Amino acid sequence: MDSYGLSTQLSMETLHGSLTDPAISSMNLLNELIDEYPVAISMAAGRPYEEFFDVRLIHEYIDAYCEHLRRDRKLDEAVVTRTLFQYGTTKGVIADLIARNLAEDENIDASPESVVVTVGAQEAMFLILRTLRANEHDVLLAPAPTYVGLTGAALLTDTPVWPVRSTGNGIDPEDLVLQLKRADEQGKRVRACYVTPNFANPTGTSMDLPARHRLLEVAEANGILLLEDNAYGLFGSERLPSLKSLDRSGNVVYIGSFAKTGMPGARVGYVVADQQVAGGGLLADQLSKLKGMLTVNTSPIAQAVIAGKLLLNDFSLTKANAREIAIYQRNLHLTLGELSRRLGTCPGVSWNTPTGGFFVTVTVPFTVDDELLAHAARDHGVLFTPMHHFYGGKDGFSQLRLSISLLTPELIEEGVSRLAALITARL
Amino acid sequence: MDSYGLSTQLSMETLHGSLTDPAISSMNLLNELIDEYPVAISMAAGRPYEEFFDVRLIHEYIDAYCEHLRRDRKLDEAVVTRTLFQYGTTKGVIADLIARNLAEDENIDASPESVVVTVGAQEAMFLILRTLRANEHDVLLAPAPTYVGLTGAALLTDTPVWPVRSTGNGIDPEDLVLQLKRADEQGKRVRACYVTPNFANPTGTSMDLPARHRLLEVAEANGILLLEDNAYGLFGSERLPSLKSLDRSGNVVYIGSFAKTGMPGARVGYVVADQQVAGGGLLADQLSKLKGMLTVNTSPIAQAVIAGKLLLNDFSLTKANAREIAIYQRNLHLTLGELSRRLGTCPGVSWNTPTGGFFVTVTVPFTVDDELLAHAARDHGVLFTPMHHFYGGKDGFSQLRLSISLLTPELIEEGVSRLAALITARL
Repeated sequence: MDSYGLSTQLSMETLHGSLTDPAISSMNLLNELIDEYPVAISMAAGRPYEEFFDVRLIHEYIDAYCEHLRRDRKLDEAVVTRTLFQYGTTKGVIADLIARNLAEDENIDASPESVVVTVGAQEAMFLILRTLRANEHDVLLAPAPTYVGLTGAALLTDTPVWPVRSTGNGIDPEDLVLQLKRADEQGKRVRACYVTPNFANPTGTSMDLPARHRLLEVAEANGILLLEDNAYGLFGSERLPSLKSLDRSGNVVYIGSFAKTGMPGARVGYVVADQQVAGGGLLADQLSKLKGMLTVNTSPIAQAVIAGKLLLNDFSLTKANAREIAIYQRNLHLTLGELSRRLGTCPGVSWNTPTGGFFVTVTVPFTVDDELLAHAARDHGVLFTPMHHFYGGKDGFSQLRLSISLLTPELIEEGVSRLAALITARL
Repeated sequence: MDSYGLSTQLSMETLHGSLTDPAISSMNLLNELIDEYPVAISMAAGRPYEEFFDVRLIHEYIDAYCEHLRRDRKLDEAVVTRTLFQYGTTKGVIADLIARNLAEDENIDASPESVVVTVGAQEAMFLILRTLRANEHDVLLAPAPTYVGLTGAALLTDTPVWPVRSTGNGIDPEDLVLQLKRADEQGKRVRACYVTPNFANPTGTSMDLPARHRLLEVAEANGILLLEDNAYGLFGSERLPSLKSLDRSGNVVYIGSFAKTGMPGARVGYVVADQQVAGGGLLADQLSKLKGMLTVNTSPIAQAVIAGKLLLNDFSLTKANAREIAIYQRNLHLTLGELSRRLGTCPGVSWNTPTGGFFVTVTVPFTVDDELLAHAARDHGVLFTPMHHFYGGKDGFSQLRLSISLLTPELIEEGVSRLAALITARL
């Protein structure tokens, strides 16, 4: 060991492979550009609208949760205090309130025992993949393009992600059948298929009802878990039932996020995993065991903030987000309108027309890479997300993602105008 | 795939190996026993003292942090609000305040850039091991017995942990030299050595100053990272310098926890990783990249709670914990006194005499396993932690760990009395 200096130990080549994967380094680059060009209009960040944030709400929510513990749960002050201050149960302290929210907003019947409260949906994804990925034969299926957080969780667990074809109607169930067959032929074990049926990040597309039923059918026939991510389901003009609410065979693990519907700063998400594990109780119990070794438990103070918001809104986040939903709808229509106005007659330029969510996909007849993004930031004062980031750098080089969630009408008009200037200069 | 039902997919045999490891299942058993025998006196849980908890403090701390952002950082209300509500920077928003605390309490000179705020020290351990563990040749060294959270993080990253001999003076630097040599001979790459120099969990032992210097010498000579965990350093009658404060060669990564000194319910910890990575900036930057894919960022609301406690106590947690430190010292001396009084003349029964921290190790001339623990809970009304849990079930079957942190003098007297009844009945 004597010749082994610390500098030999600590070079990028000696660290975990995920650290040099394009998916991780590309998101870093994006953040750097946002920092470097702060005056650029950002149509890149998928953050919720900020106008209604107010620090006083944090205090109100925490108080509402404490009052709930006293009044509804009949806990004395020492137990109320302990619930917020002390280490808490690994699965979380607000599973019952989340179950009531799921019944109210999503028509999902979840038992509190099947819920694990997590540090955002991101930790839920990691826990699921870490639990399911046992050896080098295991793979995960996911639509291409897919959410970078899913890619990240897969990288952290050394889980290969195999792409499934995605269309304007979301993931293609028939291609899923083909990919399952292909995996079987290659001696791979498919552990699950990740899917976002509502206003997916990055594309903004949704699955129609027949496609949802067909996907469930394929999952049941093949004994495959579906990991349903529903971070944006609330933000549409029409609501279709979630896979979990349609699931009769127990194939769906539901990943919930309060980042967009509750408050990003609480970092609270959850997973509903009511599947039975032979010899191991509920899948939720296994996820919880690993969570105990990853983050011990989700901050009960952060949970109290989300609980208070649920309690003060009759468990309906649809109700709690009425103003936000209207703003996202307005922004989406305004963005689509401005795209038509500025780029409607440009040859080779097109975009999809989501009915909800935060994102629109624009297709152009030239290469969209990080160099173009840097040029857009520097010379046009506008930021977007090159779609190749959601293909692991392997595809999508003629598309970009626009986010509409954080902007005012004025910024949308100016942002699309700047984007149009960039695009038309290249046609 | 057709014959592949969900029940085939979901059996313990098909899930990640960590889920059936003794280390994880044993901690579950312990929690179940605590639930099953709620009237038993628990000398098992390493939780901080609760008497001074008060929900109003959470509000005060959050307000103090907001006021700091307004007054000291000159941020306008929109930015203050955004800091708490919105997604935050992955490394955390209170790194500068943590650096001031480290200067104040630990004589550690940490640049804020080298700090990553984590969801408790547990997430810090995972991030460090996930970053360092690149392939199947990589191993981690750690004293035996060791903290179960370290074992858990190692399991989640498939990192083998090789034991280093631990004595009444903590980890043995000379055995570390031998283990490094052995690893080299077997073609293994030692990524780091984990160590808790102050009042280690589970043994309660500390390293003296010469041993600290010698350990640093060995680390420097062999180019080995030391992962210093200092969760209990504040709680002693005397304070020895941390390894990080003595480190002149950059070999120490410092893992900090606010669970015992701040508030467990905030779930805020951190890591100081100021090492340069060839081609990758600071080690902290690499940890941060992985954190972005694991939990995105630590709840800024939870960070605000810890920040407020620091701000209202002139950045000194020694000062903030003056009452707690006195109580832990009183409890420790009382426990050691009661052990002498009740078991001082029993042949084959002994214990160590830590000068601080939460734990005492008792050695007995018979087997201490989970069966004995169940018997103690059921028939004697007392709970402790069998030491074999900290040896991964491979050793320590004649020892048990007593926790003193959560008890009143009356409960300590009664608890040790019950323990003595159990022990003397077996002699």
